[in-house]
Amino acid sequence: MSLNTFGHLFRVTTWGESHGPALGATVDGCPPGVPISEEMIQHWLDKRKPGQNKYTTQRREPDQVKILSGTFEGVTTGTPVQLMIENTDQRSKDYGDIKDKFRPGHADITYFQKYGIRDYRGGGRSSARETAARVAAGGLAREAIKAIAPDVQITGYMVQMGPHKIDRDAFDWDQIEQNPFWVPDAKAATEWADYLDGLRKSGSSVGAIIEVTAKGVPAGLGAPVYGKLDTDLAAAMMSINAVKGVEIGEGMSAAMLTGELNADEIYMGNDGQPRFSSNHAGGILGGISTGQDIVVRFAVKPTSSILTTRKTITKTGEETEIITKGRHDPCVGIRAVPVGEAMMACVILDHLLLHRGQIGENRGKIGPQA
Amino acid sequence: MSLNTFGHLFRVTTWGESHGPALGATVDGCPPGVPISEEMIQHWLDKRKPGQNKYTTQRREPDQVKILSGTFEGVTTGTPVQLMIENTDQRSKDYGDIKDKFRPGHADITYFQKYGIRDYRGGGRSSARETAARVAAGGLAREAIKAIAPDVQITGYMVQMGPHKIDRDAFDWDQIEQNPFWVPDAKAATEWADYLDGLRKSGSSVGAIIEVTAKGVPAGLGAPVYGKLDTDLAAAMMSINAVKGVEIGEGMSAAMLTGELNADEIYMGNDGQPRFSSNHAGGILGGISTGQDIVVRFAVKPTSSILTTRKTITKTGEETEIITKGRHDPCVGIRAVPVGEAMMACVILDHLLLHRGQIGENRGKIGPQA
Amino acid sequence: MSLNTFGHLFRVTTWGESHGPALGATVDGCPPGVPISEEMIQHWLDKRKPGQNKYTTQRREPDQVKILSGTFEGVTTGTPVQLMIENTDQRSKDYGDIKDKFRPGHADITYFQKYGIRDYRGGGRSSARETAARVAAGGLAREAIKAIAPDVQITGYMVQMGPHKIDRDAFDWDQIEQNPFWVPDAKAATEWADYLDGLRKSGSSVGAIIEVTAKGVPAGLGAPVYGKLDTDLAAAMMSINAVKGVEIGEGMSAAMLTGELNADEIYMGNDGQPRFSSNHAGGILGGISTGQDIVVRFAVKPTSSILTTRKTITKTGEETEIITKGRHDPCVGIRAVPVGEAMMACVILDHLLLHRGQIGENRGKIGPQA
Amino acid sequence: MSLNTFGHLFRVTTWGESHGPALGATVDGCPPGVPISEEMIQHWLDKRKPGQNKYTTQRREPDQVKILSGTFEGVTTGTPVQLMIENTDQRSKDYGDIKDKFRPGHADITYFQKYGIRDYRGGGRSSARETAARVAAGGLAREAIKAIAPDVQITGYMVQMGPHKIDRDAFDWDQIEQNPFWVPDAKAATEWADYLDGLRKSGSSVGAIIEVTAKGVPAGLGAPVYGKLDTDLAAAMMSINAVKGVEIGEGMSAAMLTGELNADEIYMGNDGQPRFSSNHAGGILGGISTGQDIVVRFAVKPTSSILTTRKTITKTGEETEIITKGRHDPCVGIRAVPVGEAMMACVILDHLLLHRGQIGENRGKIGPQA
Repeated sequence: MSLNTFGHLFRVTTWGESHGPALGATVDGCPPGVPISEEMIQHWLDKRKPGQNKYTTQRREPDQVKILSGTFEGVTTGTPVQLMIENTDQRSKDYGDIKDKFRPGHADITYFQKYGIRDYRGGGRSSARETAARVAAGGLAREAIKAIAPDVQITGYMVQMGPHKIDRDAFDWDQIEQNPFWVPDAKAATEWADYLDGLRKSGSSVGAIIEVTAKGVPAGLGAPVYGKLDTDLAAAMMSINAVKGVEIGEGMSAAMLTGELNADEIYMGNDGQPRFSSNHAGGILGGISTGQDIVVRFAVKPTSSILTTRKTITKTGEETEIITKGRHDPCVGIRAVPVGEAMMACVILDHLLLHRGQIGENRGKIGPQA
Repeated sequence: MSLNTFGHLFRVTTWGESHGPALGATVDGCPPGVPISEEMIQHWLDKRKPGQNKYTTQRREPDQVKILSGTFEGVTTGTPVQLMIENTDQRSKDYGDIKDKFRPGHADITYFQKYGIRDYRGGGRSSARETAARVAAGGLAREAIKAIAPDVQITGYMVQMGPHKIDRDAFDWDQIEQNPFWVPDAKAATEWADYLDGLRKSGSSVGAIIEVTAKGVPAGLGAPVYGKLDTDLAAAMMSINAVKGVEIGEGMSAAMLTGELNADEIYMGNDGQPRFSSNHAGGILGGISTGQDIVVRFAVKPTSSILTTRKTITKTGEETEIITKGRHDPCVGIRAVPVGEAMMACVILDHLLLHRGQIGENRGKIGPQA
Repeated sequence: MSLNTFGHLFRVTTWGESHGPALGATVDGCPPGVPISEEMIQHWLDKRKPGQNKYTTQRREPDQVKILSGTFEGVTTGTPVQLMIENTDQRSKDYGDIKDKFRPGHADITYFQKYGIRDYRGGGRSSARETAARVAAGGLAREAIKAIAPDVQITGYMVQMGPHKIDRDAFDWDQIEQNPFWVPDAKAATEWADYLDGLRKSGSSVGAIIEVTAKGVPAGLGAPVYGKLDTDLAAAMMSINAVKGVEIGEGMSAAMLTGELNADEIYMGNDGQPRFSSNHAGGILGGISTGQDIVVRFAVKPTSSILTTRKTITKTGEETEIITKGRHDPCVGIRAVPVGEAMMACVILDHLLLHRGQIGENRGKIGPQA
Repeated sequence: MSLNTFGHLFRVTTWGESHGPALGATVDGCPPGVPISEEMIQHWLDKRKPGQNKYTTQRREPDQVKILSGTFEGVTTGTPVQLMIENTDQRSKDYGDIKDKFRPGHADITYFQKYGIRDYRGGGRSSARETAARVAAGGLAREAIKAIAPDVQITGYMVQMGPHKIDRDAFDWDQIEQNPFWVPDAKAATEWADYLDGLRKSGSSVGAIIEVTAKGVPAGLGAPVYGKLDTDLAAAMMSINAVKGVEIGEGMSAAMLTGELNADEIYMGNDGQPRFSSNHAGGILGGISTGQDIVVRFAVKPTSSILTTRKTITKTGEETEIITKGRHDPCVGIRAVPVGEAMMACVILDHLLLHRGQIGENRGKIGPQA
């Protein structure tokens, strides 16, 4: 993993700015023979697309993906797949005083401190628009996973928005697609709608926690000690815009547990596979998957684009104030859900390939023959 | 970063098992001319060394580091530095039924599921002993940082043990070295001692949260979008044994903040450098350092080696029970403090080199000349 | 370096097939602030462009580069630069029996053996057209080099075509741009024209040797022992289509020299820099540049597309014969000249960045102060 | 591949200097379950060991390898294997004026120019002694290959020493182990013995060309376009000390061939596998193995340590003369034979794993079912 590339064998390099001609993902290392089409990838992009309801930014981009390379007659060839999304909403506009001011809580200032360049057009490379490229790559990863580990199912959803948490006892997988927040809890969906509407009207914003679960992941994925599955997942999620924390299984709460409570007991399932009494581990022990559900959570901070005046400075070092007008998301966490799913898909595919590379199709089998 | 290597330009590969002849770190990419000696590295290893008080494992290893390569006449040459620690406590012993049973909450089972090998000797590669190699590498990183960014100061400390948190209002940097828990709060230190003593006597264990702060880190370190400073820190900390969560700045609590509260306002310091009204960002915006303190936290789960009987299975798939006797840590989080510091040092050095590589000594300057 | 990516810090990933919608280079790690435009890159693409004279393929592609990302107001931003070249000559055509037959001496068969996919459209990913993306990336690398090591001058030229070698005593730098073969020898240019014309008319093809010289490269670039400058140059040149051998300095002829003849003696130049009595080393000792000219040569095999009937097999394993009709190059080595230059530029920039990353602006100085 | 690491999935990092306490190879990514012992690796080290006859340096080192990690009960565990060779011949000695003078044709000067450090003890990191670590890693690679592609046979031999070439018509595989030069030609062996004896007595040295053949390599290894099998082989061989040229198949002579002569015709073998009428390609087309023998050659320059006075300079920039006394090899190419074999083994294993990672056990099959 370096700079703009993620992954060991399934390597995704994203490129592009929010207001340049296009952005995309150069995907290297995809297995050959994976059925893929622009429609199959578009499905996931549409899920992330802004402007679908009043809770996400009103920037309306079709976010139409084009496959420029790496496929032939409907399947991947094994060579790099270029997934390009043209920016149609590049209209010339007056950036006004944003041009020289740094938005508090935004990457404006650090990009300038690093590169000495101020690309003021909507955040440039630091824009959340970059995540569209990840979603496209994740769509390809999902199809590639099917051929290797068909039982894998990846689902993301919100578990917290601002101070409001879901009721775990009311957790309902079928609810996730039924509301604009991807919340697995019908009651929460209703309450959060009111809450977020209030925030939106007041020009404020709020953070969120997203959980992504991967079911059906084979045991044995991940590698000691810096290529652990949880290490790569932590990097994958932390690399998403605005993410400030990542948890596996119990996460930060593991600090509060005793050894008796934390260690998931093991028994044998009817299918001859090990089973666990609980999943505090989030499906990962020693950096390697156990066969249980992989459970990852990450926190997204509130967007810094708000209608309240904030103190800041200009490029030339003068103190001033700023209000960020325009089309923005009161809770960017909503659109982070498909992004988190995409990163999960990329990491799991990458580790399926890594495992197969080092070890082949076989792995250690527990049972009489072992 | 792949498998057992960490870092882009300052590359650390750790190797070795808890009960083999030796373990160590192969460090490639260290700048030349860095003054280094075995004593300078030993200082940090001694900090991590077990058996120093009743709260850490009674395994007594001198953990004496040897520099086998990469130095000449007291300075680094720029070629790989091999840091080896011999395992002196390799006594043949009866592992009894541990040999065939998997410890719940431990990597035993996943290593077997992945590799088909059961190295039952004290955890093998998954042992916390591997972290000694990281601490050695971190000691070298600290010395190399001095030549490039002499103001950098890295300090780790505990902020939570089980349900007990420090009092942030009583935070005292000078307390950290005064107690066995590296707690910056004298009162907490006393109370935690009693608490942990109780756990130790009952053969139980508990988790903890460690915070690592790096002061004096120049603005501009980190790179979009997968080589972000927080991405690499998340990976670094998550790769430490038993870690289940990583936070930057506000971390998971960022979910609860509004945009007004979260965005640190910016003003100009007397020295012509930007200052911030607060540090919710933990010193990182858009993956790039702001010049503020870098603040990272990670949660360590309780060790799975406890004296309570737990249900488990054997290699051959039989259900059974297990008690893990022997010398173990009631709170492995204590020894994770110097490990977290070492990882922070490695990441910061790596990003100092990466920044210098891509951009040179200069960076974007805010001010009249910009 | 892995799969379709080349370079350590200046990382070039090429993508695309000869007959898909587009191909290009995703360039990550370019320093910020480098002045760049499509015209500056087009200059080098035009040099490589086919169809410029009767000695290169009559496929007429404008090979127009578009910069899709990574620049702002005429300079690089430090984020990924996407260089795209659309394929305009994608006309549907009848590939006839090429579709199922493997061309001898061509990658058709091995791509099928590896991936199980037969992309018969003009060679797919194995087409020499991929080198256009390298030339584009090399154009960017040249501009970036200027800011760091302005004395560097990279020039490629042919030194052998079939059995015909240049007369080293008649070597004339000014001739290189004066003939279609980039030959630094006016007499050879004339003679080779006749020779190649004969080959072209008979539907045959021939190999060539290209030499690339880099002048003004600072001493100290390269790193032991697998990141040597000559190691990376060997990989860079061998990765070009149809290349079968790479030499540094004396190259394969070094085998015939005695130690006395081979070792370039050292003395001091008037400028206080070391000078050498000769350059058998090709500017590299121990993998690190000496400050002398870097001299690399590579041999390009003859294209396999010829008008003579050859024996081959089909996808289904039947023996058959093949003639490759159509527009082809009698000596693909001609167009390999700008490609070799581009690879040299990428490698040198990469090592300038690597050196600066590990060591900074300083390096060991020979002289009284040392 | 970066700095001191070689390989994508089977990653070898060598470390150590000729006169430090030890040197070795940290090998990451080896498949688990490979039977390995110190004796098995020692076999290959003994082949490379100096001082075995009058034609190689009289430095007598046992070069005894120790496996410090990554194995358990006689097989690899899948975690890093540390292969250490202690330097026993570290006697303090008077380096005299070598200490401040640079040897012409040697890496002394460039290491100093790069790092500003003069490790005068026998070449430090640039010593050919580093290749012992490669041979150890290659020994492990050979065993790992057996489990995946048992038909692979790797054999290196000399084909040229100074001006003397082998007679290809007298090529005899059985001769290779019968003479001190690993020459597959009995007559050449006798003649070269006299020739080299003369050189040795006169204190001179000479270069050589080594060829390494790998039989039984499955078709389909290698990947476009920078992870080609020949690209990685070129890098592998060029990274060996004193190598100045690398060739695949016809190599540099490919320049002299016409398309008719160069392209190996294809027919079907009795086993349903494709066969070729010749092997100009050296077993690689488009960077991917064809199933034919992989044939690589590399040229080793003469050692710079000779008894003739040569002009040079000192660290402080004074012009002077130098004679390199002591124990040295008249033809270092001899000992490069097992090193070339080791690099071939590492590259092939790496690509076996890469192929399996991306594509699995299957590959494209030519035949009726295709």
